[in-house]
Amino acid sequence: MTFPQWMRANLDRVEMALANYLPGMHVGLEKLHEAMRYAVLGGGKRVLPLLCHGAGELVGARSPGLEVASVSLEFIHAYSLVHDDMPAMDDDVLRRGKPTVHVRYDEATALLVGDALQSQAFIALTADHNGLSAEQQVALVRELARASGSLGMVGGQAIDLASIGRKLSRAELETMHRQKTGALIRAAVRMGALCGETPEASTMSALDAYAEAIGLAFQVVDDILDVTADSATLGKTAGKDAQHDKPTYVSLIGLDGSRELATQLGRDAHEALETLGPRAASLRELANLVVTRVH
Amino acid sequence: MTFPQWMRANLDRVEMALANYLPGMHVGLEKLHEAMRYAVLGGGKRVLPLLCHGAGELVGARSPGLEVASVSLEFIHAYSLVHDDMPAMDDDVLRRGKPTVHVRYDEATALLVGDALQSQAFIALTADHNGLSAEQQVALVRELARASGSLGMVGGQAIDLASIGRKLSRAELETMHRQKTGALIRAAVRMGALCGETPEASTMSALDAYAEAIGLAFQVVDDILDVTADSATLGKTAGKDAQHDKPTYVSLIGLDGSRELATQLGRDAHEALETLGPRAASLRELANLVVTRVH
Repeated sequence: MTFPQWMRANLDRVEMALANYLPGMHVGLEKLHEAMRYAVLGGGKRVLPLLCHGAGELVGARSPGLEVASVSLEFIHAYSLVHDDMPAMDDDVLRRGKPTVHVRYDEATALLVGDALQSQAFIALTADHNGLSAEQQVALVRELARASGSLGMVGGQAIDLASIGRKLSRAELETMHRQKTGALIRAAVRMGALCGETPEASTMSALDAYAEAIGLAFQVVDDILDVTADSATLGKTAGKDAQHDKPTYVSLIGLDGSRELATQLGRDAHEALETLGPRAASLRELANLVVTRVH
Repeated sequence: MTFPQWMRANLDRVEMALANYLPGMHVGLEKLHEAMRYAVLGGGKRVLPLLCHGAGELVGARSPGLEVASVSLEFIHAYSLVHDDMPAMDDDVLRRGKPTVHVRYDEATALLVGDALQSQAFIALTADHNGLSAEQQVALVRELARASGSLGMVGGQAIDLASIGRKLSRAELETMHRQKTGALIRAAVRMGALCGETPEASTMSALDAYAEAIGLAFQVVDDILDVTADSATLGKTAGKDAQHDKPTYVSLIGLDGSRELATQLGRDAHEALETLGPRAASLRELANLVVTRVH
């Protein structure tokens, strides 16, 4: 299977699993459940599911466990975007080329959609007959909850909020991103590995190093694209960082410096996988994709 | 041990466990973590933890498992209050006698505090050495996530929002409350029972019937207090339901009718426990407390 074929097959499987693990239509809950589907389906790069599948492959993990882990990651990611776009936070109107949830519906619905999607992630991970043992379910819940919470993603958003208009050092910027986007990327890779037989400690630390590098690379490229791409290409409002006076890699080390850094982080990701042989082929391709992506 | 002593002992243990399972102070996250403590500690009737302990007692469940389950329930409850009080929802300024989180801090912080507290519930349930087996952790996560999500508490809030200014039938009102507050009350009782040896099916269905009755009783009494008590006694803004033109039991069946209903539901709760003998003593007392409470 070529890498594009691998991508396509996994993206299709994940898309179907996302739809399956969203709640169906229920009397009285039509609007909430429709808005949850709107927030999750039809769009999104699905980077976390792909990383989860790439890491899972490395340890012989299989469907449907990998799909369940992927779905839970995407639910958390989608909820964070819905809340992040709200007026109290980034106040954005465009996401994945469509109106954001609070614009398409209303603020109260956006709040509830985010809240319900977070629960839905843990519902999926502990669903009956989801292909995961009790020990795996616990390990995945633990990993995802920690990555999502105040010492992970949400904490990163808090640091981000507090940093608006302030001059951050490069170390502070990295700390913020390590939590804000890095924690979930690291969780995606680790959760993939946890879907197989208990992985060796050396495999986990190689995966951690890999995730660390591409997590930062992802953010550096995000900062580059915010100034170089237009909103139509991005599917979200371009130029928002400068507009909000947010610290970015581009504002800190310039456009050329940021491009060099992204390339270097891509090399770091490859190095981290060196001992893992051909089973890490998909993860290597994904690292390339993260560094060279255009939206 | 008398019932007041039992209450005091369990409330003290839960309060300590809540503080222990909240994140400590971390550089850059001082405000978020302080606001999380503000939302959870120092106030609150702790009805869910008491129900959880009462049910746990029935099946021989023990500390620290029962504390962990209680903490996770309170984190979910606290997050729902923080989000519910926000301007996009109920827009309330007073809670537990103190300014609400978005008033004391700001809206973005309130949003993040709620999000992080939801994660924190699942972090607690899957913490290392928390006294629960992997099977129990999975069962508790499953129970809590379902009770919190779109078919539980959040769904109830969505129905509540959609009902403002509309005339609901009594059946519709019950459906809303069964999700909005009933789901978490039911989860509290079930989670207590899940902290012991695998409970018998007959015990679980007795507990479900009990939880159903006191869940509704709790809401009926809430509606009564909203018109009969003042804000200082309630620790939250009184008279909000009528002001927001929300359907309540009082608006539907009157004050006397509501009082009769609460008393009847209290009797139903006792009946549900009939076969369970003296081990259910605390649950019986808690039912009385729910029906006769004054705030």
